[in-house]
Amino acid sequence: MRNLRQAVILAAGTGSRLRGVVDDKPKGFLKLGEKPIIEESIAKLVRSGVTDIVIINGYRHEYYDALAKKYPFVSTIKNPDFAETGSMYSFFMARERIYGDILLLESDLIYEYNMLQTLHNSIYSDSILVSGRTGLGDEVYVGVDGDTIVNLSKDIKKIKHLGGELVGISRISLDLYREMVGHAKNMFDRHPRYDYEDCLTDLCNSRSINYDFIEKPAWMEIDDEDHYKNARDTVYPLIGEKDRAVSIKKNIERTVLLNPGPAATTDSVKYAMVVEDICPREQEFGELVQGIRRDLVRIVHGGELYEAVLFASSGTGALEACLTSVIPDDRTALILNNGAYGERMQQICDGFGIRHIDYVIDWGEPIDFKEVETIIIENKDLISHIAVVHHETTVGILNNLTAVSNLASKYHLELIVDAMSSFAGIPIDVKDLGIHYLMSSSNKCIQGMAGVGFVICNRESLEKSGALKPRNFYFNLYQNYRFLSEKGEMQFTPPVQILYALRQAINEYFIETEEGRADRYAQMYRVLTAGLKKLGFKFLIEEKFHAKILTAIIEPRDKNYDFTEMHDFLYWRGFTIYPGKGAKEDTFRLANMGAISCDDIEKFLENLQEYLTLNNIKLS
Amino acid sequence: MRNLRQAVILAAGTGSRLRGVVDDKPKGFLKLGEKPIIEESIAKLVRSGVTDIVIINGYRHEYYDALAKKYPFVSTIKNPDFAETGSMYSFFMARERIYGDILLLESDLIYEYNMLQTLHNSIYSDSILVSGRTGLGDEVYVGVDGDTIVNLSKDIKKIKHLGGELVGISRISLDLYREMVGHAKNMFDRHPRYDYEDCLTDLCNSRSINYDFIEKPAWMEIDDEDHYKNARDTVYPLIGEKDRAVSIKKNIERTVLLNPGPAATTDSVKYAMVVEDICPREQEFGELVQGIRRDLVRIVHGGELYEAVLFASSGTGALEACLTSVIPDDRTALILNNGAYGERMQQICDGFGIRHIDYVIDWGEPIDFKEVETIIIENKDLISHIAVVHHETTVGILNNLTAVSNLASKYHLELIVDAMSSFAGIPIDVKDLGIHYLMSSSNKCIQGMAGVGFVICNRESLEKSGALKPRNFYFNLYQNYRFLSEKGEMQFTPPVQILYALRQAINEYFIETEEGRADRYAQMYRVLTAGLKKLGFKFLIEEKFHAKILTAIIEPRDKNYDFTEMHDFLYWRGFTIYPGKGAKEDTFRLANMGAISCDDIEKFLENLQEYLTLNNIKLS
Repeated sequence: MRNLRQAVILAAGTGSRLRGVVDDKPKGFLKLGEKPIIEESIAKLVRSGVTDIVIINGYRHEYYDALAKKYPFVSTIKNPDFAETGSMYSFFMARERIYGDILLLESDLIYEYNMLQTLHNSIYSDSILVSGRTGLGDEVYVGVDGDTIVNLSKDIKKIKHLGGELVGISRISLDLYREMVGHAKNMFDRHPRYDYEDCLTDLCNSRSINYDFIEKPAWMEIDDEDHYKNARDTVYPLIGEKDRAVSIKKNIERTVLLNPGPAATTDSVKYAMVVEDICPREQEFGELVQGIRRDLVRIVHGGELYEAVLFASSGTGALEACLTSVIPDDRTALILNNGAYGERMQQICDGFGIRHIDYVIDWGEPIDFKEVETIIIENKDLISHIAVVHHETTVGILNNLTAVSNLASKYHLELIVDAMSSFAGIPIDVKDLGIHYLMSSSNKCIQGMAGVGFVICNRESLEKSGALKPRNFYFNLYQNYRFLSEKGEMQFTPPVQILYALRQAINEYFIETEEGRADRYAQMYRVLTAGLKKLGFKFLIEEKFHAKILTAIIEPRDKNYDFTEMHDFLYWRGFTIYPGKGAKEDTFRLANMGAISCDDIEKFLENLQEYLTLNNIKLS
Repeated sequence: MRNLRQAVILAAGTGSRLRGVVDDKPKGFLKLGEKPIIEESIAKLVRSGVTDIVIINGYRHEYYDALAKKYPFVSTIKNPDFAETGSMYSFFMARERIYGDILLLESDLIYEYNMLQTLHNSIYSDSILVSGRTGLGDEVYVGVDGDTIVNLSKDIKKIKHLGGELVGISRISLDLYREMVGHAKNMFDRHPRYDYEDCLTDLCNSRSINYDFIEKPAWMEIDDEDHYKNARDTVYPLIGEKDRAVSIKKNIERTVLLNPGPAATTDSVKYAMVVEDICPREQEFGELVQGIRRDLVRIVHGGELYEAVLFASSGTGALEACLTSVIPDDRTALILNNGAYGERMQQICDGFGIRHIDYVIDWGEPIDFKEVETIIIENKDLISHIAVVHHETTVGILNNLTAVSNLASKYHLELIVDAMSSFAGIPIDVKDLGIHYLMSSSNKCIQGMAGVGFVICNRESLEKSGALKPRNFYFNLYQNYRFLSEKGEMQFTPPVQILYALRQAINEYFIETEEGRADRYAQMYRVLTAGLKKLGFKFLIEEKFHAKILTAIIEPRDKNYDFTEMHDFLYWRGFTIYPGKGAKEDTFRLANMGAISCDDIEKFLENLQEYLTLNNIKLS
C-alpha cells in the first residue's frame, strides 16, 4: 500500500478525568516534554511524511484552532455537538475533507514513531493497529479471525479470539471511510454516542478489515491521572529512546507509468538517492560526476572524442544550453519541426534572438528529406547547423537520423540531435552518425530521476564554440564544460541525490545491456500495439514510422468515451496514461519506456478493456 | 556504517571439481539461470549500490576480462600465480585498487540479495557474514566470542563457540585490509596457499573483527556437481523468490556538513524522496507544487501579495531568472558587490547584456549606504533596480536589508534580494521590507535537497514584467509564472523527488517554527565562535557584521598547518569543512546551517582541537 499523506485526529472530547493535570484544556494539550502531546503527535506525523492533518475539535476548540494558525498543514473542523456525540460523529464531520486513504488517530495518545511507520507500510488498505496487552485499564480489545478483525470491545468476554488491544491509530481507506459514513448516518439518531470502534465492528462482518500487530510498542492512551504519571515516568522516556534509534523503512507501491517520462524507475534507483549528506565540492562527489560523464558518452559510443556536460535542469535546459552556445550570431540553424519539441527549439532560438530557418510540417508527418535538402541548398551560405528531434514524443514518430546525418555531412553542417526520449532506449552511435551535439535527460529511457539535463558534445566542436560571445550564463555550454574538466566538478550546485540515482540507473543500464534494453522496449511495444489493435484502436501515424517507445492513439469517437474518466479509472489501478498534444487528430499517448515489463503492458491492456466494456465504448 | 561502493571478488581458482558442469571455464561461469552466476552476483552488487567491482582472476582469466569490457564498473586484476597461491594472495593483488571499505566475495557463490543488504547496513566496520548451519559439506565454521570472531576453520573441533558457517561475503574496512596485506606479506614465503580466512583468524586476536548472523539465508557455495544439482533444484529458485519479495532498507550514517550548503538534512527528508513513481503532470503532483509555492511565500510572510516561481536548477538559476526577466532593456540595475555572489549578479548581467552599475568593495567590507545613496543620486534617471546579497557566504557577512530597503523605497527602486543562505534561517518579512524579488534554493537553510531554485515575487511587479521582451526561455520568470498559475504545474519537467523532499523540509521547518530554527542556528553560531576563539582562531570580519550562519576564519600562519590535511582529518571523522574564497586574507569557512545541533558543533570543536594538537599547530 502507499504511504499516507493525510491524517485525521479525533480531538473533540472533554477528557474530564484529566482536569487536575491539564486544567481546562483539551486532553491533547497535556505536556510530558516541551510541547503538548498533540504537537508531538503532529511532529511525528509530519516526520512520517503526512502533509495534511485534519483535527476534529469541539471542547475548547480554540486551542486546536491555534495549531491550525501555527502549522500550514493543520486544519480543524468543529464538532459542535461534541458533548452529546461519540467519536464516529466527529469522524463523520471530516467527510468533506477526506479525499484518499488516511491515518486516523485519537488525540490523547503518546506513541513511538515506528507505530506510524508500521501502518504506512501496511500490506492492507484498511488496518487497525493492535498492540500486545498492556493491562493499563480502559483497554479496547480486538477480536480477530486470521488476519481480519471480528469485533472491538471493552468487554473481554465478548472477544472470541483475542488479537490484542486497540491502540487508537488506524489506516482507513477512502472506500471504508465512505462506507462508515453511510452506515453511521443511520445510527446517529438512535445512538448519538456511537463510536468509530463500534462502526468498525458493525462493518467488519460485511467486509475485510485487517490489523497490524506489534507485540510491545511503547505507547499509551492517557485517560486519567494514573495514566499520566505512568506516562511521565516510564512510557514517555522510553518512546524518546526508541524514536531516537528508529531506522526508517518505506515500502513503495509499484506504479506503471505509460506517460512519456519521467519514466518508472527500479526500487534500487529510488533508494540510491538515500545517501549520507555530502558536500558536492568533495572529491568523492567529483568522481561520481566524472564517472557519470564518461559513461553517458559510452552509452552513445562516443569514445574519446566526446564530452558530456551536465546541468541541474530539465531536458529543455540542456536543449537551451546547446542551441544558445554553439550557433554563431551571424549563422543560422535549420530546425526540423514535426512536433512540439521541434517547435520548442524554435522557441528557444526566438527567446535568444538566434537566427533559424524552419522546416515545418504537420505534427505526425514524416520528414521529406528532399525538401530539407532543397532548403539547405537555397540557404547554403547561411546555415551552419541542422537540428532535429530523434524521437518526437508529440506523436511517437522516429525521425530518420541516418538521413539527417547524410545531409549534415554532405553540406558540412553541424548536427544537433534532441535525443530526449531515445537516448538509452534506442541504440545511437554518435561517431558513426557524425552527431556534434546530442541532448537528453536523466529521467527518460536511462531510467533515472528528473533533475539533470545533459549535452553530449563532440569535443572539437565544443572547444571551438568557446570563441563565441556568450548569450547567457547558467546554460553556457562551454563555460560549464571548462569548469567540469578543469575542476572535476559541476559549476553550479548539482542536484546531489539525482546524480546518485543517475549513477545507479546507468549501472543498471549496463547490467541490462544496450541490446537488452532496446529489446525489452521493443517487445513491450509489440505487446502494446498488438493488444490495442485487437481492441480496435487506430494509431495516428503509420506503423513504419513508429518510434516504438511511444504510441499516439486516435481517441474513440464513441459518446461514452471520456479521456479524463479513462485516465482516472486506470490511474487508480496503478496505470498512468497521457493525453495527446497538438496532432492533426485527437489522440492519447502511451509510452513503453522505463522500469516496466511486458507483464505490466498485458495487465494494462486488460484494465483498458475492462474500462471500455464497463462504459460500453465501441471502437469503429 | 556507510553503505559500500566497492566490491572485490576472488575468482582466480580453477574449480576443478566442477569440470563436468562448467567445461573448462572458471567456476563463476556456471549457469543456473540466463546468466553465469558471476554476472548474477555482479547484478546484485550493482543493485545494492556498488559502483566499482574488482575481480581478481587467474585461471582462464579471459572470461573475466570479457566482463570488464562489457561492464564499465568491472575491472580485473590477474593473479599470475593462481595455481600455486591461496585466496589471500589474490586479495593481496588488489592493494593498488582498494581506497576505502569494501565488500569481499568469493566467485562461486549464489546468494539472496538480503545478504548484501545486511552487510551494507552492518553496524560494524569489519564484519564476516555468518549463516546458520547448512550441512552441505566443505563448510568453514566460524568460532565466536560475543560479537567478535575468534577463528575460522573447516575442522569443527577447532571451534569453541560456534557462530555458524562462513558464507564467503565479508565487509572489510580499509584499515583491516591494510593490516591483512601487511601481515600476509610475511606469510607468503612459508605459506603460499595462505587463504584470506586464515589471515582473518590470525588477525582477530589482535583486533576486533565482528560478524553479522542470518539464521537461514538462501545461499550456496558451489564446489562440486552435487552442490550444483542442489543449487539448480532448490536453492537457486528459492533465491529468486526471496529476491523478488525483498524490500530495501538502508541505514544512513550521519555526517555533519559545515560547508555553506547543500546543508545536512534529516533522515525523514532523505526518505521523502523515496516515493511511488508519478507523472508530474498528474493533479496529485500539481497540488504538491502549489502547496510548496504557497508555503515558501508564507516563510517570508508574503501573504497574498507574493508568488513563488520554481525552477529545476541550482540557486544561480533562480538568480538568472530574476535578473534576466525584470530589468528592462533601457534601465539599469545597481548591484552591490561585497562578495562572490554580488559578483555573480554582475556576471549574469554581463552574460545577457543587461545594464548595471556596480558598487564594488573589498569582499568582507560592510556596505557604506551613504556611498550607495550617492551612486543612486548620480544615476537617478538610469537606475530602476537595486540588487543585494543578504547573507554573503563568501565571507559570512550579513548585509543590512533594512538600510537597502530604505534606499529602495526612498528612490522608488525595485528591490532584488539574493537570500540564498538566509531564507528560512534568518527571519525575513518581504512585505515589511518592500522586497520585490527574493531568491533562494531548496538546499540551504530550508534543509531540503539541491535541485530547485525559486524566486518569491511581488505579484504586481511580476505581472508588469510580463510586458518586457523575453531575453531567454527556460528561465523566463513571467512565462514560468503564467504556466504555474494557469496550469497549476511547472512549465518544464520538475525534479519530482527533490520537490517531495522540499515539501517534507518545509513541513519540518514549520514544526521547528521560524523562531525555533533561527534560535538553533544562532545558538550553534555562539557555541562555534566561542569554541574557535578559545582555540585562538581569529575571524575575517568584525563580529557585529556576522551573519551568524557562516563564519570565515583566518587560516593559521603556522608552517604545520595545511588546509587539505585539516579537511581530510575532519572529513574522515564525519565533519565537512570548506575552503575560503577570494577574501582579503586567507580563510577557511564553517557554516552552521542544516539539520545539525550544538552537540555536533561541540564534537567538531573537539576534533579540531585534536587536529591542532596532533600537528603541533600554534595559533598566534
